[in-house]
Order: sequence, then structure tokens, then C-alpha cells
Amino acid sequence: MLLTADAKGVFPIAPTPFFDDGAIDKASVDRMTDFYLACGSTGLTVLGQLGEAPKLEHAESVAVAGQVIRRAASLPVVVGVSAPGFAAMRALTHEVMAQGAAGVMIAPPNTLRTDDQIVNYYRQAVEAIGADVPFVLQDYPLTFSVQMTPAVIRRIVQELPSCVMLKHEDWPGLEKISTLRGFEKDGSMRHISILCGNNGLFLDYEVERGADGANTGYCFPDMLCDVVRLNAAGEREAAHDLFDAHLPLLRYEQQPGAGLAVRKYVMMRRGILTSAAQRRPASPMSATARAEVEHLLTRLARHDKRAALPPV
Amino acid sequence: MLLTADAKGVFPIAPTPFFDDGAIDKASVDRMTDFYLACGSTGLTVLGQLGEAPKLEHAESVAVAGQVIRRAASLPVVVGVSAPGFAAMRALTHEVMAQGAAGVMIAPPNTLRTDDQIVNYYRQAVEAIGADVPFVLQDYPLTFSVQMTPAVIRRIVQELPSCVMLKHEDWPGLEKISTLRGFEKDGSMRHISILCGNNGLFLDYEVERGADGANTGYCFPDMLCDVVRLNAAGEREAAHDLFDAHLPLLRYEQQPGAGLAVRKYVMMRRGILTSAAQRRPASPMSATARAEVEHLLTRLARHDKRAALPPV
Amino acid sequence: MLLTADAKGVFPIAPTPFFDDGAIDKASVDRMTDFYLACGSTGLTVLGQLGEAPKLEHAESVAVAGQVIRRAASLPVVVGVSAPGFAAMRALTHEVMAQGAAGVMIAPPNTLRTDDQIVNYYRQAVEAIGADVPFVLQDYPLTFSVQMTPAVIRRIVQELPSCVMLKHEDWPGLEKISTLRGFEKDGSMRHISILCGNNGLFLDYEVERGADGANTGYCFPDMLCDVVRLNAAGEREAAHDLFDAHLPLLRYEQQPGAGLAVRKYVMMRRGILTSAAQRRPASPMSATARAEVEHLLTRLARHDKRAALPPV
Amino acid sequence: MLLTADAKGVFPIAPTPFFDDGAIDKASVDRMTDFYLACGSTGLTVLGQLGEAPKLEHAESVAVAGQVIRRAASLPVVVGVSAPGFAAMRALTHEVMAQGAAGVMIAPPNTLRTDDQIVNYYRQAVEAIGADVPFVLQDYPLTFSVQMTPAVIRRIVQELPSCVMLKHEDWPGLEKISTLRGFEKDGSMRHISILCGNNGLFLDYEVERGADGANTGYCFPDMLCDVVRLNAAGEREAAHDLFDAHLPLLRYEQQPGAGLAVRKYVMMRRGILTSAAQRRPASPMSATARAEVEHLLTRLARHDKRAALPPV
Repeated sequence: MLLTADAKGVFPIAPTPFFDDGAIDKASVDRMTDFYLACGSTGLTVLGQLGEAPKLEHAESVAVAGQVIRRAASLPVVVGVSAPGFAAMRALTHEVMAQGAAGVMIAPPNTLRTDDQIVNYYRQAVEAIGADVPFVLQDYPLTFSVQMTPAVIRRIVQELPSCVMLKHEDWPGLEKISTLRGFEKDGSMRHISILCGNNGLFLDYEVERGADGANTGYCFPDMLCDVVRLNAAGEREAAHDLFDAHLPLLRYEQQPGAGLAVRKYVMMRRGILTSAAQRRPASPMSATARAEVEHLLTRLARHDKRAALPPV
Repeated sequence: MLLTADAKGVFPIAPTPFFDDGAIDKASVDRMTDFYLACGSTGLTVLGQLGEAPKLEHAESVAVAGQVIRRAASLPVVVGVSAPGFAAMRALTHEVMAQGAAGVMIAPPNTLRTDDQIVNYYRQAVEAIGADVPFVLQDYPLTFSVQMTPAVIRRIVQELPSCVMLKHEDWPGLEKISTLRGFEKDGSMRHISILCGNNGLFLDYEVERGADGANTGYCFPDMLCDVVRLNAAGEREAAHDLFDAHLPLLRYEQQPGAGLAVRKYVMMRRGILTSAAQRRPASPMSATARAEVEHLLTRLARHDKRAALPPV
Repeated sequence: MLLTADAKGVFPIAPTPFFDDGAIDKASVDRMTDFYLACGSTGLTVLGQLGEAPKLEHAESVAVAGQVIRRAASLPVVVGVSAPGFAAMRALTHEVMAQGAAGVMIAPPNTLRTDDQIVNYYRQAVEAIGADVPFVLQDYPLTFSVQMTPAVIRRIVQELPSCVMLKHEDWPGLEKISTLRGFEKDGSMRHISILCGNNGLFLDYEVERGADGANTGYCFPDMLCDVVRLNAAGEREAAHDLFDAHLPLLRYEQQPGAGLAVRKYVMMRRGILTSAAQRRPASPMSATARAEVEHLLTRLARHDKRAALPPV
Repeated sequence: MLLTADAKGVFPIAPTPFFDDGAIDKASVDRMTDFYLACGSTGLTVLGQLGEAPKLEHAESVAVAGQVIRRAASLPVVVGVSAPGFAAMRALTHEVMAQGAAGVMIAPPNTLRTDDQIVNYYRQAVEAIGADVPFVLQDYPLTFSVQMTPAVIRRIVQELPSCVMLKHEDWPGLEKISTLRGFEKDGSMRHISILCGNNGLFLDYEVERGADGANTGYCFPDMLCDVVRLNAAGEREAAHDLFDAHLPLLRYEQQPGAGLAVRKYVMMRRGILTSAAQRRPASPMSATARAEVEHLLTRLARHDKRAALPPV
């Protein structure tokens, strides 16, 4: 089952579950995967930026990816393979594809500046991993400092047929979606799947602009699935009502650096993860931050019962 | 009336009103100033990053600042004087202080990297403008790429008595407020005013962390004033309810680059500005973006009548 | 006398002479200008990056430019007008062109990333200053962090007829010169003047690659003039011999930040400037650095008598 | 044999030899190692930035390091272990130390900004690799965009006893050496070895400032050894004469990005490498660039017979 340009819906970005001592928590990997399946996810992404991939040894990365791929057998699983060199990228790609991954996700190194440098990088990446491996183009300037114009994305899509999806997390990014969909309409670019990241901060309008769904890790992926579904069903105001109810917490989790702790904390509170631990180096949440998240959950529970959790 | 470390409340960041042809719209400058006064603002900031200051000629900058200072006679007015060189910074500072400004705001040039470079820069800036001019330290890494740790801010505050306020817009920034207030508590730093920027995206919790208020340009400064007031009055949930109702629009306006167009558009729709025009270079709002803002206003009006505007 | 695309030779980048107290040293301005004329310079550039332009008040900038323009009446004088906003750029441009400047030099702001952003910036700059003012495109990624590919430079040259010269200081940059000259040869780009900066660190091969000369501030502009002349006369090895003799000092002066102090020190030692002072903020040369420069001069004097200076 | 703070002399940065098809050229690895030994090197560094480390698969990295370590049995061999995550850094460190490496070299990730971030990073790195593994602190702002003040280096040295060497390649950097040696003198920092990189562009004065030698990859490491030796022997002018003769070529090789091709080309011309090939992605040298290097070699041969090579 390979990833295609027709992908739609929600591909949650899975965190990597650890025990407090830093060991990988395999039971939570299974429980989390089952949870994503139950949510209505249409795919999964592992070893992304917020999956703490750089803290895993190579064998661990392969093992985590394999476990999720086998558990989520009915869904396409994308594996993040960004690496400082093409040798490591190729090695990891081949191992995870051999285990049944649907494709890989590649972020640009933060040294790229000019349009040509960006296009060349993806050309070389495809040469390294093989043109038969579908890949997701990750466009996240806030974190990677690489700015891809719509025209650059079009060049990559047109030149590299194995580019089947854009993980769209430019910010601001609404006009970019409209421009890319305009390129498809005017025939200058073939269709690709556009799934949105950046914790879903603009998902409410992104799906109205033509995005196919979400590819992000917000701690209520069930809400993301609902919003995409409501929007597709034409229930616009209901989609916004649900989204707006989550926005205070979603915004809180979207904080760069600090957000992963919030995500893991809520997923632990929801019974999905055994521990909220991150592997070192990690910055722990302060007691005040935990209290703020509990406050946000309490307020959210007035609108969405899924946030009504037993007291700590 | 000079700015002091006891400043509290809301200092809106004023945009510069233009006519469609790029000329300064003086009538709107007065109307906007009156509006800020009526909102309950406790001060005003002009010629900030989003005041399109770099598009003004020197004489225009002085004129706009002077008009606001005279109109808002009862309030302290802070003027942004960030400049590529200290000569221009000094010249503008002296002219606006002579007109009655309460102080100036200084952002760091984006070439600063090390802690010492940052502290040295502010030392030199004070030497240039004079130690008798109160200044606001602008901490906005997202835009300026300069990262000031709490310890660096403490060094600046302790060494430079004319630093009386922090325009706090680090992101994430909640722990930073707690740390700085902790420095005051443990006696290692004198008290300064902390007003929050970044469009108020975390104002709800920032005031709970010890911030004194807001110093930002969100198109409903009246809401910012209400939230600060409600929080001070101990009406925590009411503050959050109002804030949350605005969050969808506030987040939309907070988009870097695109946000100023939104702000000016809503201020025009509210009758404060005659035109939403920005001086060139500027990126106009698309028709889709305008429709999205109208949608956001309509939804907001269900909770806050101030957003119920006559149709376009 | 307007700058044209046929400019050749050496346009020294003039420092701004100050007295020790920071006042502008007008006598040195004249002496320096006369010295540049006597060297065989074919033009002059003032208020460049290393002319301490940001430390001058607006009126001072206009005065210095005017003094040099009048004194060097027989030569085209280019004035640096880079500014954070187009309003200030336009104002300074109009004042110096009215005084007889031959054109202006514009560096890109360091926030530009994509190809389109760079082209748009120069399009807007020309709109601001007027299409009748010849301008020099400054390509200096080391300092400005803006990377212009040859294709981007071609877009600017083709779209904006008032772009008549490239101040080439990309590093590495030799292939870039060959590529640009190749564009002229294949008819895809009109001819422009290419003068090289970066303290002349590769001038020996740059002129062989097709550059028209130098546009930099090395403290022996007479050597730069000789190298360009010898190369044009076909005396290749003589050009390299002279260049190589200067390379140890030239490299020492090319150090970012520290270099201007070296340049001014040697120009003072040569009797051109009264003082080596920089306006604050400035980092003074250490005694060890001064001794190193004296050592370099002594060694250079074995090959070039112009470096044989009376003892300090 | 572990690396200590008393290291002196020249530790060449070894390139990784490839055949034209990208396979590792083991015969050249041995020949190159023998050459470095014959030069008078006092140590060796492999898998550095210019060793194309990111293009090697993990097993290849371990194999190359092991081959050099065994071949250069009499010398300490340092291995570059910089990695995007501590897991990979720890894994590679343990494998190469088990093979007999003398220590490892760690460059900072280019996302570090504040002083504390830098110190924390090295603290965490030591925690990951173990406090018993000597490490080299690489200070190369030009490439890594991380600026370490002397005070930050002192904090690292004082807090982390396993930091035994600074690979100094800040630019400008002469005053930094003086400041660090001053810290040792005033007792505020223990002694560490300082070996200079940046292709040796300032080695002539760096050794006079107190550096212990060179740690860089210039294609004539024999010259680097001679300069360090002559300086130590008090033959100052002879050291400068030899250095200056090499400076035109050395500067040419120091060009970022383009330099590695020059280095490998000359090492091939000298009979050390079988091929000048880089593993992909790589930019090949143009015919003009090759001719320029031959020209530089011919001119150098007038002063240093080692540059007199048989015609191509």
C-alpha cells in the first residue's frame, strides 16, 4: 500500500512513547496506534520532528516504525527520514519501506536559501532514496527557516513524480493553498494531496481553501477528524464551533518547543500514553503550566465531553 | 509625563492611517487616538513595527508622533525609535521627547547573537539617546531573530536604570514572565513593567503569570482592556470567556506579514480608519481573506456585540 | 554624469574620516578624495557599508556625499542609500542625485529569502527612487545573508534597465562571474559592469574571469588600480606578483568587523587620514593588532615601496 | 592513548577518499594516512565537516575511522561525531572509542543562539557520550552560525573537564586566542589545547598569539607543520615567508563549499589520492578553476619545490 496523491483525511503525527527512564514504551505504541485507528484516521506519520526522531538510535527508529506499520495494517504509514546526509536517509528509507511503510517524509535542511538550492535538494533526495518511493514534502519555514514559494513547490511536483503530498505548515499559509490549487486548476501543476500541520492552528479555514485534511499531532486527533468530516459534509458552522472550542488548548500546544510536553501530558491524561516523558534533552512542564493545561481541559469539557477527564 | 516601571493596563500599538493614495490620513489619526482613549487604554505606542514606521520619511514620523502625543494629552505615549544606526535613533528620540513623548521603544537589530552583544547594544543605545529617556525593551525573537534569556534581560534592567518596561513577545513566553517576576521576588532584579505583545495570543494566561497588561495592536483593543480589567478584578472565567470568543479572529490577525491588513480592515469596518490602505510595499488582502474575516466577525458577534458591524 | 553599464577600473569604497571626538574631518575628506584621484581611480563610492553610513545623521550623510562629489568633479560618484524603508531611501537618493551623484548603491535587507522576494525588493526600490536613477546591485551574502543566484541577478538586470552595475562580493564568486558573462554571451542578459568587492580577496582571478575591476576599500587602492591595469595590459604574472605581495595584509584587512580599523589605521599611516578613529560604537585595535599590521607593512615594503612608511 | 589538553602541532583534517563511482578508496586512506605521518603531523582528525561525514552510512564511518586509527597507530586520532541527536552521537562515539580513537570532535547545531543554550548543549553532549571521552570543541561560526564568546568557551571548559581542545575557527579570531590565553594567565580558566582551523588562513599570526598549532585540511599539511615548527624555533620571518608563499593557494582553497574540490584535486595531483571525486551531492570543479589551481601551483613552486608537480 503506497501513499498516493489522492490521500485525504487526517494522518496524525505520532509522538514516540517513552517510560520515565527513557526506554521506549511498546505497550503505549500499540495503544496509541489503536487510538488513532479508532479516531477515524486515514493514515499515520511516525518519526516526525515532534516524534523525537533525532533522540532515537537507528535500530530504535526502525523498530518503532515497524511496530506501528504492523499494528496499523489497514492504514498507510509515512515515516520521517530527514537526515543530515543522503546516506543515512537512504538507509532508513530502505529499511522502513521493506517493512511496509507507505512512503517517507523529507524536511529541507535549514541551510537552503535559493529556489534552485531547494529544488536541487529534493532532486538529490529522490536520487538517493529511489524514484519509486512516494515522499511527502514538508514545508515548515518556522522551524526549518527554508522558504518555498508556490512556484518552487510546483517545480518539485512537476519534476519529481514521487512527490505525492505536501505537509503544509507555512505560516501564514492560507493563500499558499489557494495558489497551489489554482496551479492545479490552470493545468500548470498536477494534483497532490495537501495535509496541514502547524498543530492545525488554521485547519478550520485550510480545509475550506482546498486542503485535503490534517497531518499534525494535536492531542485531540479525534477533533481534527471531526472537523475534516464536518467540513466535507457541508456543516460549516458546526465544524467551526467544534474547532473554536478547542482553539485555546490547541494554541497552547502549538508553542514551539514547549508544545510536545503539553501533547504528551494530555495524551497521558487521556489514557493513551503511560507516561508523558520525553527522552533527554527535554524541558519538563512547570507546575504552573500543568495547572494551565488542566484549566484549559476543564473549560474545553463544557463543549466537548472527550475533554472531561478524571481528576489528576 | 515620563514612562515609569509602574505602568499597567493596555498600551495599544497604533497603526499609521493612510489614504488609498498613501498620504497620511490625519483625521483618522485623531479618530483612532480618541478611540483608544475611550477604550480605557492607559498609554499608547506609535511608530512600532506594525506602524509602518520604515515607510515614513523622517518628518512624517515626527509629525505623526506629535499629533498623537497632543491628542492623547492625558496618556503616556511611547514612540518606536529603532533604527539601523544610533545617529538616526538619537535624532528621532530627541525630537519626539521634545514634543512630549513619555519614552521610546527600542528593538534589537537582527544581527545580535551572543548575550554580551545584546547587552552592549542597549548600553550603546542608552549612551546615544541619553540616560534620562525612559525606554521599552522589545523582546520579539520571532521577528527579530534575537533571543534574550531572562538573565540577559536582568543584566539590561540592572545596568540601565532607564529601562522601565519590557514589551514581552517571546514565544513561548509564559515561563519567561514567571522567571522575571521570580527575579524581582528574590531581589536580583528591580521591578519593571511587563506588557505583552504578539497580538495578545497568550494574554489570558500572561496576566495570570504576572504581566501588567498588553502592548499590542489587536483590532479590538477594547477587549484587551476588558480582559486585563476582569483579571485584575478576580473574574478569571469571565476574562477567559471573553478572550476565547475573540481568539479565532485574534489568531487570524496574528499571522506575520498578513496580519496588518486584517487589523486595518477591521478598524476600517469599525469606523475608526477611513481606509485600510497600507503604504507600499504592501500585500493586499484577497477577496477570500476578506470573506474569512467577515465570517470571523459574524461568529464573534454572537458573543461580543462590538463585533456586530453593518454589512459591507 | 550618470553611471553606465560601461564602467571599468576601480571605484574605491571611501571610509568616512572622523576626528578622535567623532566629528567629521572635512580636511581628510578632501585629502582622501584627492588621493583616490591621484591613484587612477575611475570612480568613487561613498556611504557604503564600511563608510559607517548608519552612524551618520541624515544631514551629515548628504554633506559628506556632496563634498566628495564636488571635489571629485571629474569622476562618477556612487552613493550608498540602503535603508530599512523606501521612504528614507528615496529621500536620500533625491538629495544626492540633486548634488550630482552618478548613481546609488542598494544592498538587500537581510530578511529576503526567496528568488521572488529579492526581485520584488529591487522592483519596489526602483519604483521608490525613480527609474531614471542608475543603481548598483550589491551582492554580498556574507554580510547580508541574502543569496542571489546568477538567474536572479539576470531577472533584475533584464527587468530593471536602471541596474547598470553589480558590486560582486559573493564568496565563492569566481564561477558566478563566468556564468553572468556567459549570460551576456548567449544573449539572455544585457551587459552590465561588474566591479568586485570583498576587499579584493580574489581580484587577481576575478579580472581574468571577466570582471571590469574593483569596488572595494582596501587601504592600497593604488595597488588595485595597478592590478586592473596590468591585467588589462596582458601582464598577467606582473599583476599576480603585485597582488600576491599585498595578499597577507589584504587578507588581514578583510576580516569582518575588525577590518575597518585596519583600513583606517593604514590610511592614517599613509598620511591620507588625520585620525584612524571610528564613530562609536567601534571596537578599537589592540596593541598586538597594531604591531601585526606594522609587521605586515614592513614585509610588504620589500616588494612595494609604497608600504615603506616612516616609523610610528 | 587519549587526547589531552597538552596537544600541540598539526592535526590534519583528513578528507574521505572516494573512487569516481563513490566507493570508499581504502588504498588512498592508507596512503593518505602514511603521508600525514611523514609530514610530521602530531595527530589526525577524521569525519570532520570536510570529510564528507554526512554522506557516509554509519558502518562506513566506523570503518574509515577504524582504518585510520589502526594505520596511524602512533598518533592520536580524533573523530568527528556531530549529529542531529545525542543517540547517534553516543553510538558513534562508543564505536570509535572502542576502536582506539583518542577523542571526538563536536560541532554545535546551528539552532543554538544564547550563551546558555550553547553551554547546555555541550553539557548534554558530555552526558550522552560519557565524561571519560575527551572532546574537541569546534568553534566555527562562519559555517555553524553559532557564536561563542570567550566567556562561553570558558564556562564550557571550566564545567566540563573532558573538553581538552578548542578547534578555533572563529573569524576574526586573533583577539579570541589572546583573550583565552589571558583567561589561563589570570587563573580563571584551565589550560586547553588550541589548534586552528579555517584552512589556516591566519595560522601565521595565530601561533604568535598563543595557539598550539593547526587542525585543518589545507592540501599542503607539510607546510602547516613547517610553519608551526619554524615559529616554535623562533624563526619568525622564515615562517612568514613560507606561509605567504602558500597564501594565494590557501586562500583559494579556503572558499566555502568550493574548497573541498580544490583540496582533493591537489592531493590527487600530489599522488596522495587516486581520485579527486566527492560523493554526491558535489559540485565539480570547472575547467577554468582547475586551470587557476594549476597556475597557483606553478607560481607556488617558485618558492616551495613540493608544489612542482609533473604536468597533468
